[in-house]
Amino acid sequence: MGETMPEAYKEFLDIVQKLEDHYQDMQDVEFTIERGKLWMLQTRNGKRTARSAVKVAVDMANEGLIDKNTAISRVTPEQVDTLLHPQFDYETKQAASRDGSFFCKGVNASPGAAVGRVYFDADTTQQKKEEEKQDVIMVRPFTKPDDVHGMLAAKGILTSEGGATSHAAVVARQFGVPCVVGASDVKIDLDHKEMSVGDVVVQEGDWISVDGTTGEVFIGKLETHEPSLDEQTDLLTLLDWADDVCATPGIRQGEGAGFPTTGLQVWANADYPADARRARSYGARGIGLCRTEHMFFEQERLPSVERMILADSSEARTEALNELLPHQRSDFEGLFEAMDDCPVIIRLIDPPLHEFLPGADELQDEIITKRVAQMADYILGKSESQEIKDLELMLAKVESMHESNPMMGMRGVRLSIMMPEIVEMQVRAIMEAAANMTLRGIKVKPEVMIPLTGHINELNVIQPRLEAIAKEVMEDKKVEFEYKFGTMIEIPRAAVTAGEIASVAEFFSFGTNDLTQMTFGYSRDDAERSFLLTYVERGILPKNPFQTIDRDGVGALMKMSVDQGRSVREDLEVGLCGEHGGDPDSIEFCHMIGQNYVSCSPFRVPVARLAAAQAALKHAPKA
Amino acid sequence: MGETMPEAYKEFLDIVQKLEDHYQDMQDVEFTIERGKLWMLQTRNGKRTARSAVKVAVDMANEGLIDKNTAISRVTPEQVDTLLHPQFDYETKQAASRDGSFFCKGVNASPGAAVGRVYFDADTTQQKKEEEKQDVIMVRPFTKPDDVHGMLAAKGILTSEGGATSHAAVVARQFGVPCVVGASDVKIDLDHKEMSVGDVVVQEGDWISVDGTTGEVFIGKLETHEPSLDEQTDLLTLLDWADDVCATPGIRQGEGAGFPTTGLQVWANADYPADARRARSYGARGIGLCRTEHMFFEQERLPSVERMILADSSEARTEALNELLPHQRSDFEGLFEAMDDCPVIIRLIDPPLHEFLPGADELQDEIITKRVAQMADYILGKSESQEIKDLELMLAKVESMHESNPMMGMRGVRLSIMMPEIVEMQVRAIMEAAANMTLRGIKVKPEVMIPLTGHINELNVIQPRLEAIAKEVMEDKKVEFEYKFGTMIEIPRAAVTAGEIASVAEFFSFGTNDLTQMTFGYSRDDAERSFLLTYVERGILPKNPFQTIDRDGVGALMKMSVDQGRSVREDLEVGLCGEHGGDPDSIEFCHMIGQNYVSCSPFRVPVARLAAAQAALKHAPKA
Repeated sequence: MGETMPEAYKEFLDIVQKLEDHYQDMQDVEFTIERGKLWMLQTRNGKRTARSAVKVAVDMANEGLIDKNTAISRVTPEQVDTLLHPQFDYETKQAASRDGSFFCKGVNASPGAAVGRVYFDADTTQQKKEEEKQDVIMVRPFTKPDDVHGMLAAKGILTSEGGATSHAAVVARQFGVPCVVGASDVKIDLDHKEMSVGDVVVQEGDWISVDGTTGEVFIGKLETHEPSLDEQTDLLTLLDWADDVCATPGIRQGEGAGFPTTGLQVWANADYPADARRARSYGARGIGLCRTEHMFFEQERLPSVERMILADSSEARTEALNELLPHQRSDFEGLFEAMDDCPVIIRLIDPPLHEFLPGADELQDEIITKRVAQMADYILGKSESQEIKDLELMLAKVESMHESNPMMGMRGVRLSIMMPEIVEMQVRAIMEAAANMTLRGIKVKPEVMIPLTGHINELNVIQPRLEAIAKEVMEDKKVEFEYKFGTMIEIPRAAVTAGEIASVAEFFSFGTNDLTQMTFGYSRDDAERSFLLTYVERGILPKNPFQTIDRDGVGALMKMSVDQGRSVREDLEVGLCGEHGGDPDSIEFCHMIGQNYVSCSPFRVPVARLAAAQAALKHAPKA
Repeated sequence: MGETMPEAYKEFLDIVQKLEDHYQDMQDVEFTIERGKLWMLQTRNGKRTARSAVKVAVDMANEGLIDKNTAISRVTPEQVDTLLHPQFDYETKQAASRDGSFFCKGVNASPGAAVGRVYFDADTTQQKKEEEKQDVIMVRPFTKPDDVHGMLAAKGILTSEGGATSHAAVVARQFGVPCVVGASDVKIDLDHKEMSVGDVVVQEGDWISVDGTTGEVFIGKLETHEPSLDEQTDLLTLLDWADDVCATPGIRQGEGAGFPTTGLQVWANADYPADARRARSYGARGIGLCRTEHMFFEQERLPSVERMILADSSEARTEALNELLPHQRSDFEGLFEAMDDCPVIIRLIDPPLHEFLPGADELQDEIITKRVAQMADYILGKSESQEIKDLELMLAKVESMHESNPMMGMRGVRLSIMMPEIVEMQVRAIMEAAANMTLRGIKVKPEVMIPLTGHINELNVIQPRLEAIAKEVMEDKKVEFEYKFGTMIEIPRAAVTAGEIASVAEFFSFGTNDLTQMTFGYSRDDAERSFLLTYVERGILPKNPFQTIDRDGVGALMKMSVDQGRSVREDLEVGLCGEHGGDPDSIEFCHMIGQNYVSCSPFRVPVARLAAAQAALKHAPKA
């Protein structure tokens, strides 16, 4: 065009420059030239892949075309998320298309690349995954609540019906499973366990590759590419700018004493040193949740845990706990080392003790199996074997600990009050680890978090006992470091009486998963398996409240907590740990109510950093 | 004294008259006369039995010595409660004492008379009650949470240790079981299963009679007297005065539109016409809770209920429901007839459906038993019997309906949204019954209550469908009557968003049992069995929140609900149904926040009437 129609071409360049200046974004324009005259038909911001979105934003800012804040607003958190999931290389897919491996295209419902063998029902999908350790892709015309166990087992999901808000799409996004829905060219024959597009037939057990980012599906195994954040220099630049925004004093204004004037910090949930190192490399400024009970589940420790639970005296219990103490201490030492100079919030034991024991059904089956095997002994009048007696004893214990609604039973601080030996051991392990690391020159900032508080008196009973241990350890080791004791706010009553609770607790961390369960009266497992996704599909709930904070209900309680808490303790540190900490809409809400930080899984930290900056910019005081 | 020391006697009478005028109560005075001179040593309000307390108060008011309001304040709700429990006659106990049957005396921890056979551990107590239908008395040195199943099975409880706030006392009062604690003369020998006072020995299985009202225990079976309210004319008079107080306009003042100016009404919970008639005879002004699912549990109806649950199509389900409709309709007709001209709140189905099916363990045991019985068939290669196949089918269904936390799962309005046929049948039955009764000249005031609402959209989806049925029935039957649709407030989120909810709901009824469960995050069954009573004993909780409303937490949510609800719907009717409705402290709180009524079990209605009047008087505007 430049050579054949030089004037129109020049005019075109001028107009495009004007448009790009006006919209401050790359433009996708339609035009025509009739009898030498240029007609502009349409213009819109250019669509681009996640990678190019980041690159264009950073380049434009570096060239001075836009400012950094505008660059931050040009990239969506979803795009950052995409860049952190496994991907198919563009070249790989091009090659696959050329050799005829392209199978179909549908709606890109949940990003990421998945490669696996095809199964056409949830039970088989789950079974192949669990029993044969296969990589599996679940294919269905559409999914229902009954199918969730298969979807969870699957590397990827493909449906021929439904759109971006269908059951399959909602569940897949929630669990981070790559998913393509509504691939309407595909005919699925459930009876013959095969699917086809035209003549191309895929049978049960065949390999396919699903690109949830683009909606494409290929036959066979395509190579995936695990993204490394370090290599993505443009993204790193953008996230540094995002952190700068949040660190700007005055970027946030709110009423009341203690309301932060900078934006949200992003912390991460990490149970092990390796998680903590990853979190830090992804930009986390602290650990918002270390779940200590995960350490109990390790193979070598479980026997001590069982002995501790089955103990019939405080002495026997303490003895078993003493076996666990060195393990916990060394876990914490690793965490403090990885998080030198950063706060580390460690939650004391939370789940009910029966979670650490085998299930009653399992024990019952084992007893019946052994009794049948030893039936000759019975017929001959011999007494039952010690093995069976031990199993029966364990079964009796398990049955005595049964709870109708374990989510709301003897766990968290309730367990600590009834059986303080466990948390005493945990706090000793935390403080000894902190002392040892301090002596090695590490700057430790331990924060001990008491879960499930509902009444100020629970803290009044347990916290002084634990603080005494901290002081004792510091004296013994002749070392000083700062520490905090605080609580989760996850029981509605704690939110309603947060002022009282802040008189003892030095920090709050919202456990929005449990707070959502109790505020709605939903048991999450049960609800998601039965009615909750239907509620979302039918618009009864605007969103799944376990993914995005319900601002009107749960959020109102959170705001009440922050306001009441800071009115009693101005410097109260307030955060959130859990899935919501990685959700952009929830992050915005946390910013608005004046939280200090959000804590999410390490992989979501980059997403959260961008979302926190966008929230700060959106609500910044007008100049 | 009058004859030997006439002057001192006259002086004494003068002084006592002055004291009684001053204290406006019968006085218990101590005095001495030294050398003819009268010395008054002490005076205090006379202690008296419940019956005489009522009689003295009413007599004094009738004689003009005190006004009616003072008479109301002279009797405690506990005294009224005592008058409604079975009692031993004074003469019977006198006779028993004379013939040497008196055994011991302890602290009167929970009122009422109990007669039964003695057992010394909870398991045996429960077993004798359940398997042999014996009347049982549980005797222990003291009780622990493990013992609660025995205490619930017992007619009465006796302990040799502990006081009025011991575990035994707290549990007994809670469940209304007569109880004597701390009878320290009694030696309990658990090994030999006997107890003794001196030479008198009571062995396992022997009969004793426990008077929880006075703390006395007798050997053998004493005759009990079931009190009839009708015969207690003084009490009836006092309760009429109490009702007059509550009916006085201006007795209550509060801020905000819709705040009632009269006191609380007392309604009752009743599932059957007989309950309703009793409630009315006890002075209830309405039915605050009829639990419709109780009607499903009746023997002749359960097969239809099972068919309804197991139905695999909406048609099959509707067919089973049509079998239930005439039953429900006739239940409701009886209720409306008993409650002519009074409001009747009927709650739509609330529990999860699996409660109507046999348990998985039970089915599993049955299958194993049958398989073993038919083992020869198995060895001979015959296929499994239809009987076993049916059981397996039922087991699979029961397992598919299993919930980890059924309290927070698929029940209440959630169930109605997922499976609307059940509540459609129920509303049709209610409205047909109301129409039929209206045609027979009865003034019906049905109020349909939707349980477990957490989000306004739940009502938006279900309520219009149900209102349409009401209109349809009225048109078909060519009859008009007034009705309301409303909801329970028992989910914290409903309390927090009560303004929205009141835009659709025409009345609120607090379900404070569930609201307490979710606000505290307690599963009541689990909590009372494990930590809750320890919390109360140790003062971590001032009272059991399931007995007395926790004003700071649950109460704050209730107040929020009333205020928000009335700001949207000025004439919003607000009540409470459940145990708290019969608790004086909770009744006072309901008065303070502006509820219209409380609803409690029929037997608690007289207690609640007095407590409502006392609350009204305590908070009445100063003249």
